[in-house]
Amino acid sequence: MLFRQLMKCLKQTSFSLSDYNTKRNFFRAVQLQANIPGTFVGSLKSIVGDANVSTADAVRDQHGHDESHHEVHKPDVVVFAESLEHVCKVAKLCNDNKVPLIPFGSGTGLEGGVNALQGGVSLNMSKMNQVVKVNAEDFDCTVQPGVMRIALNAYLRDTGLWFPIDPGADASICGMCATSASGTNAVRYGTMKENVLNLQVVLPDGRVIETAGKGKRSRKTSAGYNLTNLFVGSEGTLGIITEATIKLYGIPEKTIAAVCHFDSVQEAVDTVVQIMQSGISMAKLEFLDDKAIEAFNKYSKFNMKVAHSLFLEFHGPALGLEDQFNTVKELITSNNGSGLQIATDEDERKRLWKARHEMIWACTALLPGSKPYSTDVCVPISTLPKVIVQTKKWIEEANIIGPIVGHVGDGNFHVFFPMMRGDKETYEKVQDLHFKMGFLAMEMNGTCTGEHGIGMGKRKLLEKELGPTGIEVMKEVKKCFDPNGIMNPGKVFF
Amino acid sequence: MLFRQLMKCLKQTSFSLSDYNTKRNFFRAVQLQANIPGTFVGSLKSIVGDANVSTADAVRDQHGHDESHHEVHKPDVVVFAESLEHVCKVAKLCNDNKVPLIPFGSGTGLEGGVNALQGGVSLNMSKMNQVVKVNAEDFDCTVQPGVMRIALNAYLRDTGLWFPIDPGADASICGMCATSASGTNAVRYGTMKENVLNLQVVLPDGRVIETAGKGKRSRKTSAGYNLTNLFVGSEGTLGIITEATIKLYGIPEKTIAAVCHFDSVQEAVDTVVQIMQSGISMAKLEFLDDKAIEAFNKYSKFNMKVAHSLFLEFHGPALGLEDQFNTVKELITSNNGSGLQIATDEDERKRLWKARHEMIWACTALLPGSKPYSTDVCVPISTLPKVIVQTKKWIEEANIIGPIVGHVGDGNFHVFFPMMRGDKETYEKVQDLHFKMGFLAMEMNGTCTGEHGIGMGKRKLLEKELGPTGIEVMKEVKKCFDPNGIMNPGKVFF
Repeated sequence: MLFRQLMKCLKQTSFSLSDYNTKRNFFRAVQLQANIPGTFVGSLKSIVGDANVSTADAVRDQHGHDESHHEVHKPDVVVFAESLEHVCKVAKLCNDNKVPLIPFGSGTGLEGGVNALQGGVSLNMSKMNQVVKVNAEDFDCTVQPGVMRIALNAYLRDTGLWFPIDPGADASICGMCATSASGTNAVRYGTMKENVLNLQVVLPDGRVIETAGKGKRSRKTSAGYNLTNLFVGSEGTLGIITEATIKLYGIPEKTIAAVCHFDSVQEAVDTVVQIMQSGISMAKLEFLDDKAIEAFNKYSKFNMKVAHSLFLEFHGPALGLEDQFNTVKELITSNNGSGLQIATDEDERKRLWKARHEMIWACTALLPGSKPYSTDVCVPISTLPKVIVQTKKWIEEANIIGPIVGHVGDGNFHVFFPMMRGDKETYEKVQDLHFKMGFLAMEMNGTCTGEHGIGMGKRKLLEKELGPTGIEVMKEVKKCFDPNGIMNPGKVFF
Repeated sequence: MLFRQLMKCLKQTSFSLSDYNTKRNFFRAVQLQANIPGTFVGSLKSIVGDANVSTADAVRDQHGHDESHHEVHKPDVVVFAESLEHVCKVAKLCNDNKVPLIPFGSGTGLEGGVNALQGGVSLNMSKMNQVVKVNAEDFDCTVQPGVMRIALNAYLRDTGLWFPIDPGADASICGMCATSASGTNAVRYGTMKENVLNLQVVLPDGRVIETAGKGKRSRKTSAGYNLTNLFVGSEGTLGIITEATIKLYGIPEKTIAAVCHFDSVQEAVDTVVQIMQSGISMAKLEFLDDKAIEAFNKYSKFNMKVAHSLFLEFHGPALGLEDQFNTVKELITSNNGSGLQIATDEDERKRLWKARHEMIWACTALLPGSKPYSTDVCVPISTLPKVIVQTKKWIEEANIIGPIVGHVGDGNFHVFFPMMRGDKETYEKVQDLHFKMGFLAMEMNGTCTGEHGIGMGKRKLLEKELGPTGIEVMKEVKKCFDPNGIMNPGKVFF
């Protein structure tokens, strides 16, 4: 019986997605027997070469999750693309056979964006890792999907330019496009949305487009629909990003970083609101509550006062900068902030921000062996004090570990809950909080995610945020680009 | 025979678009006989009231063109919407009957975006003119489609806030969304794309969505597809924008405006490139060539030196600003710029920029009775000198009037050709130049339109810019939102 089903599966050249799902266990069993001519895995190998296809359990496991707590869902097979041609042919093969296809950047997401909910092919882009071109005089560059943000900035160092968008993880630039990522510098430089000039994209049927037109990298355009920003934040559900042309910035002439502390959350966040309303151009404006500072000290060997704190940074020409810094200093004092310390030394400043970027791991380390369950809401700045104070109250009431850390200058903040797998009680409390926070953010005219994306973790919240018609319209857009529903199925929408 | 056809037309409840086009002359004849029960015009009147429907020739003519030279194409009927409900019902009626529907903002476009190429209904939004809400503490506001940019800034004056995006014309905010407009301040504040937080949109079938989710106005979001930026720049071809939530900015503490002159185009534009590359945050950086200054002096009663000129403006806190201004001054001098004049007086500064905004009419006035044929390309900043110098050479070779005026800090510039209707020779020369400039911009990795849009005027150039696959994909997106093809048909694509 099994043999006959296997043979049937092998002979079949086209499956429906539901066929595929019911058959994938057999299918996988076949593939694991290795390179059988005429099979799907064989076809993949003929496209990308044997060495670039893996069905090894460890490799599939590694591609079945990101850095979050979300349940692992392994793909059936992992393919490493080395060229645009590989990506086109693999996409077409998957599309023709209605096999799920999940683009895999660096696996550093936080909402299960790469987890292979319906199995299929995980397409690892890390071998396409060239900086295609740097146009220093135009402040832009084009990169392949394997280029990571820290490596890009190292590569750019001699040009005097940098790419400021900095999610906590060392993510790939194209992955950051797919998630519409941002980070600590977004308050000054914007998010990925404001910094992508063009994308080369492979559609599920193998067609290639440049979203803004071939080679285009002008700062402005009104030519046709803005497909660039449709793919920014599409989370691998519309196509595969194979090149990104992004804006670069001059490394600022002067940088001032500082830290200060507050007795109450309210006073700290009121200070943020006043700084933003004063119109001062902050480069970073971060909040860490007392619990976060505890984690920060412990993990990164600092000895900071355990209190609700603001981490600030100013970028700019030397002269005006100190004036701005002094205005901020006055606002801090008038809100009873204290202990203002300035990180003047470059190494000291770098150490401070490295530690800030590692906060997710600092919080996770509070519970050894745990994985992070992180939330991420974003609200209009005037409502931020109310939302953060309420969130802190809920965390205390639930009696769970949940440090609050956030890019508060944008109205965006996170709670990093360390979670032990199998701890159902905490999981339920955290789930409850994640919904409460999402709903509160929406009530304040904000969003359930400012920068992590929907992935598999926030699909219910998205339904609430967009309403039935909004979801319906987005599903129509998905269908337009991906009529067979092969691209990262089950993500963003149920 | 005519009577029978008329009767058939009246009885018909649903037409195909081609049916509609072949029948529209009969159809119009019927409508012009006035309010016949059961007719399409009657249905429109029953939705919006008799006073809000017009088939008068003068009204149809006024809605059949924008401010450009493009041929007038009158709609069959003009409808004035007074509410969201009106818009939904009119859209649904047009969709059910496959009648073209063209949203009409202020009619100040430059590529024939509102011209009713296939007749149908022009939906004038000017009566929906409320500022729905100003959230001063969050630097945002929500406006209806009839709110104009100058009126909005007057309304905001007491709040200390302003909306900086300033196309030449006093356009409507929602029209500016539809065209992805920008203007002189884009070099600092971005274009509409970077400044729209949410849009309320009526789809052709009458469904209403808020592109970012109900009431959302957080600064960042990663929740679902970026439909907001799909509608920004969609030129009325996907749906009707009925509300826009936009970012506001604090009125700068200090403003410095200045003008300087150069003997050669090359030196002027080299100065621009060097200013941009120095990383100085300019608020405006405008180029006017010698011919433009002639027009400027004549139309706006200035007495400026007739030479290639830069108009500059700096916004910011007082202290740093003068330092930046001094750096720019050095760059101007090192490129042999001269006659640097600073407009310190507020009235003088306003008069300068008002005159700059009226440049299209100043150039048109060079040829009394003419209409403006304006082009608009945008290129990476390093290629700007080459493109402007070449363009000027082509204009001289063609021996036509064509002053060059541009937002050169963004790499964006215009040529305003005054055109007499019926002057075929000049028209052909200008058409030729418009193509040459578009192709050259593309060759330099730029675009055929930085801010005017495609409308009816640049469809051929768009085909070249996107290539067949790009056009194909954009048409698929159009079909997804507007399967019956009723929304502003014939625009953006052929």
